Amino acid sequence: MIQNPGAAPARLSINQETIRQWSLPDLAAGCTAAAVTSVGLWRAQVQEYGVQRAARLFRDSGLTVTSLCRGGFFTARDPRERAAALDDNRAALDEAAALGTGTLVLVSGGLPEGDRDIAAARRRVAEAVAELAPYAAERGVRLAIEPLHPMYASDRCVVSTLGQALDIAEQFPAEQVGVVVDTYHLWWDDLAPAHIARAGAGGRIACFQVADWVTPLPEGVLLGRGQLGEGCVDLRGLRETTDAAGYRGAVEVEIFNPALWARDGGELLAEVIERYRTHVA
Amino acid sequence: MIQNPGAAPARLSINQETIRQWSLPDLAAGCTAAAVTSVGLWRAQVQEYGVQRAARLFRDSGLTVTSLCRGGFFTARDPRERAAALDDNRAALDEAAALGTGTLVLVSGGLPEGDRDIAAARRRVAEAVAELAPYAAERGVRLAIEPLHPMYASDRCVVSTLGQALDIAEQFPAEQVGVVVDTYHLWWDDLAPAHIARAGAGGRIACFQVADWVTPLPEGVLLGRGQLGEGCVDLRGLRETTDAAGYRGAVEVEIFNPALWARDGGELLAEVIERYRTHVA
Repeated sequence: MIQNPGAAPARLSINQETIRQWSLPDLAAGCTAAAVTSVGLWRAQVQEYGVQRAARLFRDSGLTVTSLCRGGFFTARDPRERAAALDDNRAALDEAAALGTGTLVLVSGGLPEGDRDIAAARRRVAEAVAELAPYAAERGVRLAIEPLHPMYASDRCVVSTLGQALDIAEQFPAEQVGVVVDTYHLWWDDLAPAHIARAGAGGRIACFQVADWVTPLPEGVLLGRGQLGEGCVDLRGLRETTDAAGYRGAVEVEIFNPALWARDGGELLAEVIERYRTHVA
Repeated sequence: MIQNPGAAPARLSINQETIRQWSLPDLAAGCTAAAVTSVGLWRAQVQEYGVQRAARLFRDSGLTVTSLCRGGFFTARDPRERAAALDDNRAALDEAAALGTGTLVLVSGGLPEGDRDIAAARRRVAEAVAELAPYAAERGVRLAIEPLHPMYASDRCVVSTLGQALDIAEQFPAEQVGVVVDTYHLWWDDLAPAHIARAGAGGRIACFQVADWVTPLPEGVLLGRGQLGEGCVDLRGLRETTDAAGYRGAVEVEIFNPALWARDGGELLAEVIERYRTHVA
C-alpha cells in the first residue's frame, strides 16, 4: 500500500529528473497536490519552457526551487572552449537567480580527448570556480561542487570524492562555494563520513541528494540509479550523518531510471514519498 | 609496425585473461616464442587443465607464475557460506604453492543480498584474512588484497581504494599480506600516489597490474578495460610512482576485453608488447 501523499515530509524535494515524464507544469501541479514543498530543476527543461515563465510557475505554485542542475564542464584546455564554458556558467547563475534558488550544482567535466593528466584537470576546475565565484556572489547564488562517482572520472567529472570537492571549495568563502552530498556518488567511500563532518563544520553543504545503488549497471552507467530502498545504500545513515554535520536543508530525491520514467508520474511520486519515509526520513 | 616480439621487456608478465583465446599450452608456447618470461594465471583454467599439470607446463617452459587470481569473496554473513569461502581460499593457497607463485590475489567480495553495512563487510574481510594468513605463510604464499574500482563495491569487492586495502593488510606481517596495485582500479584516486608510497615503504606491493580506462563502460562494467594506450590512464606515471616506492617486481598486463579476445592471440601478444614499451616501460 502506498500511503496518502497528502502529507509529504517537509524536507523532501523532488528533482525533476526523478519524474522526467512530467512537464514543468505537471511537476508543479503534481508536487502541489502531494504537498511536496520543493523541487530541483534542470537547465535544459527550464530553458525550453522559458526561465521567467518557469520562475513564475513555481513561485505561483508556492514551490521552493532547492537547486538548479547544472553548471560546470570546466576542464577544456582550449581557451575558446574554456571561455565558452565560463560564459555558459554565468548564464546558469543568472537562471538560478531568476528561479530564486541559491544553489547551482556543478558537474566539473571529464578529461579532454587524449588527456591523461587528471590532477591538472582538477586544477582547471578550481581556476574556473575562482573566476565564477564573484559573479555568483553578486547574484546570491552559491556554486555547489558535486563529486561524482569515480566511474565518471574520465568522461563527466574529474572531482570524484567529497574530499576532492572540499579541497577546491575551501579555497573560497563558504557562502560562495559549497559542495553537494549525493548518496549515489559517495556511499562506497569509507572517508565520506569524515568529509561530510568537515563539510558541515565549514558550512559547505549546499545540497543533499539521495538515490540508491543497484546493479548490474547499464551500458554507459548513467541511467541505472535505484529507487530508494531498492539497493545497498544506507540512505538513512547518510542522512543522519549529514544532519549531524549541521545540515538543515532539503533532501532532494534524484533518480535517473528509465523504468521509473515509464510509469505514471503521480503513482511514482506517491511511491517516492512512501520510500522516503521508510528509508530516509 | 609492431616490433619484433623477440625481445620482450624483462618485467612484463602476461595475465592469461588478456589473451583468453589461448589455452594454457598456447599461452606457454606463445609467451616463450615472444621471450615473455612470466605469466599471471586464473584458478578456473588451471583447475580445468590440472594444477600439477599446469605447474609442470609453465616450469618446463621456463615461465614464472607471477600471481594466481583469485581468492577472496569473504563477505558472506552465513556461517556455512563463510566456512566454505575459507576452505576454498585454502585450496587456492595450495594451488598457488603448487604453481610456484608467491602471490594469491584476493577479490574481497561484495555486499550480501539485502545488506547495507559496507563497513561491517570490510571488517569480515579483515577477519577472513586473519584466519588465512598463517595457512598462507606455511605455504610461502602471500595474500594480496586487491582494491577494485568503487563501481564494483556492491557486487564484487567492498575494498575500493588502496588506502582501505592497506588498512587491512597492515594488521598482518608484510610477508604474509600485501596489496595489488592495478592502474585500472585506482587511476582516478588523488590519494593513490601517497598510498603507493605507503605500500612500498611497508614492503606490501605484491603485484602491479596495468590496463587502460576507456568509455563508454559496457553493461555490467566488467569487460570494458582498454588496451594499453587506448585510454586516459597515465600508465607510465603510475609505473614510475610504484617503482619509486621500491617495487621491483613484474608488471602484469591484465585486460578484460572481448574485442581483444576476438583477435589472433599471437598478434595480440605482439601488440601488447609494443604498447607496453610505448606506454609503460
